[in-house]
Amino acid sequence: MSIDYQSLAVKGVQALSPYQPGKPIDELSRELGLNPGSIIKLASNENPLGPSSKALAAVRDVLDELCRYPDGNGFDLKQALAARYGVKPSQITLGNGSNDVLEVIARCFADPTSEVVFSQYAFAVYPLVTQAIGATGVSVPAKDYGHDLEAMAGAVTERTKLVFVANPNNPTGTVHGAEAIEAFLDLIPARVLVVLDEAYCEYLQGDGYVDGLSLLERYPNLIVTRTFSKAWGLASLRAGYSISSPEIANILNRVRQPFNVDTLALAAATAVLSDEQYLQRSRAVNAQGMKQLETAFNELGLDYIPSAGNFIAVDVGEQAAEINQLLLEQGVIVRPIAGYGMPRHLRVSIGLPEENDRFIESLARALDTLAAADPGGV
Amino acid sequence: MSIDYQSLAVKGVQALSPYQPGKPIDELSRELGLNPGSIIKLASNENPLGPSSKALAAVRDVLDELCRYPDGNGFDLKQALAARYGVKPSQITLGNGSNDVLEVIARCFADPTSEVVFSQYAFAVYPLVTQAIGATGVSVPAKDYGHDLEAMAGAVTERTKLVFVANPNNPTGTVHGAEAIEAFLDLIPARVLVVLDEAYCEYLQGDGYVDGLSLLERYPNLIVTRTFSKAWGLASLRAGYSISSPEIANILNRVRQPFNVDTLALAAATAVLSDEQYLQRSRAVNAQGMKQLETAFNELGLDYIPSAGNFIAVDVGEQAAEINQLLLEQGVIVRPIAGYGMPRHLRVSIGLPEENDRFIESLARALDTLAAADPGGV
Repeated sequence: MSIDYQSLAVKGVQALSPYQPGKPIDELSRELGLNPGSIIKLASNENPLGPSSKALAAVRDVLDELCRYPDGNGFDLKQALAARYGVKPSQITLGNGSNDVLEVIARCFADPTSEVVFSQYAFAVYPLVTQAIGATGVSVPAKDYGHDLEAMAGAVTERTKLVFVANPNNPTGTVHGAEAIEAFLDLIPARVLVVLDEAYCEYLQGDGYVDGLSLLERYPNLIVTRTFSKAWGLASLRAGYSISSPEIANILNRVRQPFNVDTLALAAATAVLSDEQYLQRSRAVNAQGMKQLETAFNELGLDYIPSAGNFIAVDVGEQAAEINQLLLEQGVIVRPIAGYGMPRHLRVSIGLPEENDRFIESLARALDTLAAADPGGV
Repeated sequence: MSIDYQSLAVKGVQALSPYQPGKPIDELSRELGLNPGSIIKLASNENPLGPSSKALAAVRDVLDELCRYPDGNGFDLKQALAARYGVKPSQITLGNGSNDVLEVIARCFADPTSEVVFSQYAFAVYPLVTQAIGATGVSVPAKDYGHDLEAMAGAVTERTKLVFVANPNNPTGTVHGAEAIEAFLDLIPARVLVVLDEAYCEYLQGDGYVDGLSLLERYPNLIVTRTFSKAWGLASLRAGYSISSPEIANILNRVRQPFNVDTLALAAATAVLSDEQYLQRSRAVNAQGMKQLETAFNELGLDYIPSAGNFIAVDVGEQAAEINQLLLEQGVIVRPIAGYGMPRHLRVSIGLPEENDRFIESLARALDTLAAADPGGV
């Protein structure tokens, strides 16, 4: 008798499709026989600067400890985060990237009887972790590609346990200011947890932007999540965290795996927090690259969604999949986001100036190729 | 109105106590004001050799990629594992340590209506992941500190979804041979998944020991989990894996976090698999240290549980907690296992010869101190 093991999986998992990451350079190299050194990747919202020298030095310093388990309590990193952000170590939950923290939050508070609210076009991990648990995801239609916060608050029912708000949002780059976030939080019952995902908050500049940490005292149901994978440039190492009330952190810390953040990640993250110069350079390169891409899109006559992150979603029309393929063949990896319900857009991470140039040239060439193949087309 | 957030957590989580890791050297140093260099840690079954030079070189080679996300598919590591163990990459699920894989397995197949069977005195993560899900853990009384496999098979009911078998077991070091494991698997219905946790299998030597991988073809309900944290010496980096049917691996890979194993861990694990010399040295140092401790325990008149792992549980009597404290004060960290229901035992990881000596001397001194304090006592 042959058993169908898929039918033995819990319900949510049976229907689950895994997260589709950006294509790694090595994979494209294998697929198309391209030289890896000739490929540029603007697909995963990575920091194009390369790592902070302080982070690198910290990693090198702990290499002789490879045989030892990490500090499961992340003492040093929690101390550094607490000092930088004016919170207590007991408010912090460390994760293997903020992905891990988002999942742990969902597993702590949602079960198959729960509803979890998020926005259309929001980070793919929210519906994935919701479905893995067997909870019901409630996707609220976006407004101008951004979160419709009022509608999200309206979608809260008695069964709602969690609301995920990405600010800035990925993959759209939309952002809400402090006033809008506070008005939203005022509408949410205290028994419903709000996860404010600030993975891209370090790129925010200027007034009007919200710092979720400043709201924690007023809203005990708020959990702010952040990551070292973006502006801090440590995506390879997987370090993220949440800051919440100590009471909520105590719950999350029961469920996270005891060694979820590894020794090298702990060391690098602790060190990079003191590398203010690196952060400033990350911001500057990003702001400059964003202008470069916006200018190019304007010249090419392409619509884009103004972005507060380190990426930008550009509307390349109905043949986005073909354009993506033409980009890949030129050794340029960006992210198609049809899986997010945005089949006309490509999400492009901001690179170094020369990477942005290369992408723009490749894109223009791809558009020309398609126009030549179908002169009557879009 | 103040909300009790603990009451909002899912049932299993409300009653959960987190895993208690071995005390890190830095923590003991802070607590007792000891020089970290003077402390030895024999508490977490770590490889005392220090890392493989091949692993170190591989980590150094990828340091300039810190800004890039890991390869979510772990292409190179899966190729290396497949080649070494004669399996297909599609049978492999990578994890952030085998802890991660164990948790993913439980989340894929168990829910609050399920029962999960494991042995008394088995690895603490089994009951923890079971409880976090809200499933019912069924702890089967041990036989001579080892798994009573027949009784475990007898504990399977219609609600049982998973059985965890640690072979060798942690913290007792007990092991079953191939015949016993096969007889057990024959008793388990094919609809019940058996997780054979072989975290310590690389320390097995001689005949009669089972290699779970050789059983996969006959038992499609079998999942074998392994780790790079023990004999391979990469505990800090968090890399583990399971090998199963491709069908089961496909399910597990939907639920694991897309970047659960980081770039440095992937690189180090791939490299160390080709360092056969390191593995042989790990085994030799372990066998030698095991003899050293057994001899000492015999001389001290202490009972111990013969161990197939890289650690040994020794019965130090009713004052185990006091002895542990006296060891800590001498800068020696071992693992009290009262939390495993073994209040008279300390679990000691096998160290380098000089570390083992230092532990033995400190233990003898602690026993003397207690005997002097209470001459009529045990």
